[in-house]
Amino acid sequence: MDIERRSVSMPHVSQQTDQPFELGVFSFVEFDKDPVTGVRISGAQRMAELLETIELADQVGLDVFGIGEHHRPEYLASSPATILAAAAARTKRIRLASAVTVLSSDDPVRVFQQFATVDLISNGRAEIMAGRGSFIESFPLFGYSLNDYDELFKEKLDLLLRLRESERVSWQGHFRPSFTNLGIYPRPVQNPLPVWIGVGGTPESVVRAASLGLPMVIAIIGGLPEQFAPLAHLYRETARQAGHDPAKLALGINSHGFIADDSQQAADDYFPSYAQTMNRLGRERGWGTITRQHLESARGLRGSNFVGSPDQVIEKILFQYEHFKHQRFTLQMGVGPIEHKKVMRAIELFGTKVAPIVRAEIAKRRAS
Amino acid sequence: MDIERRSVSMPHVSQQTDQPFELGVFSFVEFDKDPVTGVRISGAQRMAELLETIELADQVGLDVFGIGEHHRPEYLASSPATILAAAAARTKRIRLASAVTVLSSDDPVRVFQQFATVDLISNGRAEIMAGRGSFIESFPLFGYSLNDYDELFKEKLDLLLRLRESERVSWQGHFRPSFTNLGIYPRPVQNPLPVWIGVGGTPESVVRAASLGLPMVIAIIGGLPEQFAPLAHLYRETARQAGHDPAKLALGINSHGFIADDSQQAADDYFPSYAQTMNRLGRERGWGTITRQHLESARGLRGSNFVGSPDQVIEKILFQYEHFKHQRFTLQMGVGPIEHKKVMRAIELFGTKVAPIVRAEIAKRRAS
Repeated sequence: MDIERRSVSMPHVSQQTDQPFELGVFSFVEFDKDPVTGVRISGAQRMAELLETIELADQVGLDVFGIGEHHRPEYLASSPATILAAAAARTKRIRLASAVTVLSSDDPVRVFQQFATVDLISNGRAEIMAGRGSFIESFPLFGYSLNDYDELFKEKLDLLLRLRESERVSWQGHFRPSFTNLGIYPRPVQNPLPVWIGVGGTPESVVRAASLGLPMVIAIIGGLPEQFAPLAHLYRETARQAGHDPAKLALGINSHGFIADDSQQAADDYFPSYAQTMNRLGRERGWGTITRQHLESARGLRGSNFVGSPDQVIEKILFQYEHFKHQRFTLQMGVGPIEHKKVMRAIELFGTKVAPIVRAEIAKRRAS
Repeated sequence: MDIERRSVSMPHVSQQTDQPFELGVFSFVEFDKDPVTGVRISGAQRMAELLETIELADQVGLDVFGIGEHHRPEYLASSPATILAAAAARTKRIRLASAVTVLSSDDPVRVFQQFATVDLISNGRAEIMAGRGSFIESFPLFGYSLNDYDELFKEKLDLLLRLRESERVSWQGHFRPSFTNLGIYPRPVQNPLPVWIGVGGTPESVVRAASLGLPMVIAIIGGLPEQFAPLAHLYRETARQAGHDPAKLALGINSHGFIADDSQQAADDYFPSYAQTMNRLGRERGWGTITRQHLESARGLRGSNFVGSPDQVIEKILFQYEHFKHQRFTLQMGVGPIEHKKVMRAIELFGTKVAPIVRAEIAKRRAS
């Protein structure tokens, strides 16, 4: 269903929360040749640089770092929990999330065990973000059929939620062996272990998250973000009707972007790997070629791409806040390789220039 | 088959290697009430203490740290790779192994991906030690039958070895969905990623490891270790007949034990949790009650338990070396909770007092 054609009217959103607005970074741990130099660094170096960025994100006070799951040569992250465990051992306060765990093709028992372990290592900072996945490589690899795309997710999410509810569980389903009254270990620090739902814009996914009373992240990576605002209304209204207090639910938005000291620099840093990655995917999926003009258009105030100076990114988060009244914004800093020192600078700017102003301004707007 | 009754005669072992003798520590990450105080610390504290011990093991120059896999409330480690990833982020030189991965009830693709990730985080220090497992909780949990105990391991090991051999793999088997020409990512730093076989004394397991030319660890946790020496002969002879150079294979021994500044202290520190754990297992498995006299007997020179002063442990490793000519010795420091500061002291003694003397003495014996 094309969300842009939905007739749900723009709601007046009155979401309130006592929690400060949260800001964070997502990475798929892109592992590709540098679009400028043509060089691909080693996997070990890429991983070391990733961990440095997570440490820095923690140090500059960002709230969450998310790692995606991909089973392709252009990404190092096929096991988010393994990477998050390393990050947990190097950080103090930042929350550590999958972004997303492709739950449909995984075993919820293993996923729960791994994230419970990350939760122990991090002393209560782990989050599972479950999604159906925008790539499909994991389905044939783990023996699943895309014909069961939705049923798989539904059943596996049901099992995952049972595992966090009680230590001993009985289970019967179609896509994973049944068991009776078995204990699942280790138990996490957080009870319950947070499970978010990551959605790409499908209303049925929004309804599912809301009906279950689960926090939700919308990935907005194209179009006009304000056109996704009806999903926020749908989410809160469905939750309310299902008996969940919308004020206790968290809504996040995740978008692509990059931050540099000035706007031109941000776009220059971002564009080469953006074009390289989007054009490769475009060849697979039949999209047109990405030009610099696409980026310039998408990074305008009403566009979906957060590439700009700290002031531009602040303005854009606040603009979206008026439409979504969301609780968390996460930035996927590049969809392909960007020079490490530039990524470090982007995270520093995000944590020290963008986040404090966004948090203060949103607190002010909530209070008024 | 009871190895003590086998008629294989004690071989003259002439195993040589250029590598220094390796020493390390294994842990199942026991999570139980303290047998003395009756208190169980939190899971997060237990995990933090574990990571401190691995960091110390690295700092004092031990060669390897192994984490077991158990799906029981008395252990925190159901996902060794997740814990090893955290350890990788905190250490510089020590090798990081599973001890063991219960491969029979896991998916080799996920196992490979997780350990390849640990290998990237650690810059080439990950090892998979695959075993059939001495506990059986994972079988019903992941939908496997104990009737397939051996076939499961055989097939899954075959797949695991194929995954490390090439990036794209086709697979057809009985216990895991088939796939055709798919890529497995990320690729590890080490090529091939080390895969050891952990055996409990079953000659068939030894023959399998040897036939495949894989390094092997024998767990010796009871009886007279010298009676296991025929397994070392069987291993090397089978490897030779299968066309593998025995001099290029590594044999390890893993045993229970503990080290303190003096012998009496080591036994006093070790006994309470040893008795608590062994008597709990004994009730499940129909063993008799463990007494202090059992421990005193087992920790003699010819016994299987390495509880003692540094000098006693040195003497015992060297005594066993004459029987096995092995390449690696690992000590499981306690089978239940022992006060953290005592474990830290034990690791310090192992790395600073025991390891240098053992390495030097074995180098001398090999040269003569």
